[in-house]
Amino acid sequence: MTLLDGRRTGTIDHGGSLERARALFPKAPQPFVDLSTGINPHSYPLFELPATALSRLPEPGRARDLAAVAATAYGAPSAANVVPAPGTQILLSRIASLVRPGRAFVLGPTYQEHARAAAIAGHEVAEVRSFERLFEADLAVVVNPNNPDGRVVSRADLLDLATRLRAKGGLLVVDEAFMDVGPRAESVAGDVDLGGIVVLRSFGKFFGLAGIRLGFAIAQPAIAERLEEELGPWAVAVPALEYGIKALSDTAWHTEMRATLTKAAHRLDQAFARAGVIVTGGTSLFRHVDIEDAASLFAALGREGILVRSFADRPTQLRCGLPGTEVEWRRLDVALGDWAQDRQAAKGAKR
Amino acid sequence: MTLLDGRRTGTIDHGGSLERARALFPKAPQPFVDLSTGINPHSYPLFELPATALSRLPEPGRARDLAAVAATAYGAPSAANVVPAPGTQILLSRIASLVRPGRAFVLGPTYQEHARAAAIAGHEVAEVRSFERLFEADLAVVVNPNNPDGRVVSRADLLDLATRLRAKGGLLVVDEAFMDVGPRAESVAGDVDLGGIVVLRSFGKFFGLAGIRLGFAIAQPAIAERLEEELGPWAVAVPALEYGIKALSDTAWHTEMRATLTKAAHRLDQAFARAGVIVTGGTSLFRHVDIEDAASLFAALGREGILVRSFADRPTQLRCGLPGTEVEWRRLDVALGDWAQDRQAAKGAKR
Repeated sequence: MTLLDGRRTGTIDHGGSLERARALFPKAPQPFVDLSTGINPHSYPLFELPATALSRLPEPGRARDLAAVAATAYGAPSAANVVPAPGTQILLSRIASLVRPGRAFVLGPTYQEHARAAAIAGHEVAEVRSFERLFEADLAVVVNPNNPDGRVVSRADLLDLATRLRAKGGLLVVDEAFMDVGPRAESVAGDVDLGGIVVLRSFGKFFGLAGIRLGFAIAQPAIAERLEEELGPWAVAVPALEYGIKALSDTAWHTEMRATLTKAAHRLDQAFARAGVIVTGGTSLFRHVDIEDAASLFAALGREGILVRSFADRPTQLRCGLPGTEVEWRRLDVALGDWAQDRQAAKGAKR
Repeated sequence: MTLLDGRRTGTIDHGGSLERARALFPKAPQPFVDLSTGINPHSYPLFELPATALSRLPEPGRARDLAAVAATAYGAPSAANVVPAPGTQILLSRIASLVRPGRAFVLGPTYQEHARAAAIAGHEVAEVRSFERLFEADLAVVVNPNNPDGRVVSRADLLDLATRLRAKGGLLVVDEAFMDVGPRAESVAGDVDLGGIVVLRSFGKFFGLAGIRLGFAIAQPAIAERLEEELGPWAVAVPALEYGIKALSDTAWHTEMRATLTKAAHRLDQAFARAGVIVTGGTSLFRHVDIEDAASLFAALGREGILVRSFADRPTQLRCGLPGTEVEWRRLDVALGDWAQDRQAAKGAKR
């Protein structure tokens, strides 16, 4: 048997692995403060599931309920536009396969799994730095707001791009993984019926429940149906269905959490500022810094058991998630302060 | 945008939906005794997960641990042969896409999702009744032991078929969803390194944990790697990882459960026999009957709140899972007895 499109795409390093943290900083004080992801540390309140939650197959009707609740929460035209999936990750190569192999342009630098998924689907993939280059693509991918720098593309620009791509049989994928805390007026989840647009929404990040694996594609009903057929019945586990339905309907929690996260993000910027580091962007779930001695900061924090996200190909950048407890805030403050002092001393010594 | 390979394949009716049961038999006494699936009613003992199980991303190392434990439990050559997935269902169209679109033959009648998945992958699909016809396929699918009739194909025959398919670039898929209770000597999970074979193993059925969504593909490392790349990181949710690792390593539980299920299957055969129905096959997780008045039996049981599986295209066949409690056994016994009496009376009246 010959493997079709079997190009090796390799694995990509991501944040969120304590294993990797332990390997990098074996002598760091435990437990690690994991700020390497953009996952909300204040997760949606846990609740008891009925005993049958694990034993019985997911009910098809519960998946439909979830699609309806998600449509309302995300502003999709209707439940028929929404595909619940065990995480958005598993959808990426399926979505990239909706268009014939051609040119896939990803607006970068950004979350690297999009380029990998497009390559698996047989596209010739390039990361482009200017939005205008996306007009030349068959498949264009925009993460909005962007991870890690928080760059926002306006809804008007996205709709213009989608119109042009649609005219030539192309597709625009907008990954709104962090749009729950983003400028929601720029979401295109309500515009998918125009055609040629697939929106991705992530459940685990804003609700702090990344371990249950839940995400959504939002698209024209014909595309949504196609994706659902590929996933087959029972794609979403019962715990994910139940948490999804409850948490996505809980608008009071959403509002309160957005305020909490805005405050926490501001506090994080101040913590960096006290250490002489200016935060250059991000969302309320993570902040982004770009400084010459990012590697030294990454290592100094790591030695203190604080894990932030570094980027192999962009050595001056770091991404930092939100501490969840006062103990974690304090550890970060102290570690940042110590690093700033050492940095100051080193500068003094050079003079 | 044009949908590629967008043929409508529709949804397939399956067992396991209480919603559907309520719609069919609105006046039935509740709770329903759901015997419409082959899921073990004696599920693996539930245990507490750490609070971080839902909040943190799955650790890549835990997925590797799970692959190792599954390799041992299923007799795969090594962990590198094993792909953990959120249920086998989601793998079907990906596996069917490993070979260029051609002729897909499914040994039937059997679980219908295989034909649907092969169609999605662009194959010309046919259900064939004789094993020999599979030699003509590019993609051959055998469910072993078969669902619903329990038919077993020998390992020797499967390896012979795989050799012939491999020689012409074809692929054999063996769905061993019920092999945990099947004749395990006929499993080909240990033979995948020969090439041209993908084995599917289901976690939820034998362990009675269908709601957590966990299944495995077992294949040559190159194919396993390809499938893993398509799924992307974090494909399996943390609860599924943790239950999988614990339950698949618990060989004492496996042995004891196999004995329990064998006894229960025998008891079910006797219950049918007392009602004058001869069980014609199945596995220890479900039994299969083929009688002229299957529709009347299905309806009589349904009215008593006992749901078995019927087949739209095979009106004489029923599949019946195992009752889980003495109350359920008694309800089944009574309902079968009443139906048998009515049947006897009707026969008498005809004479």
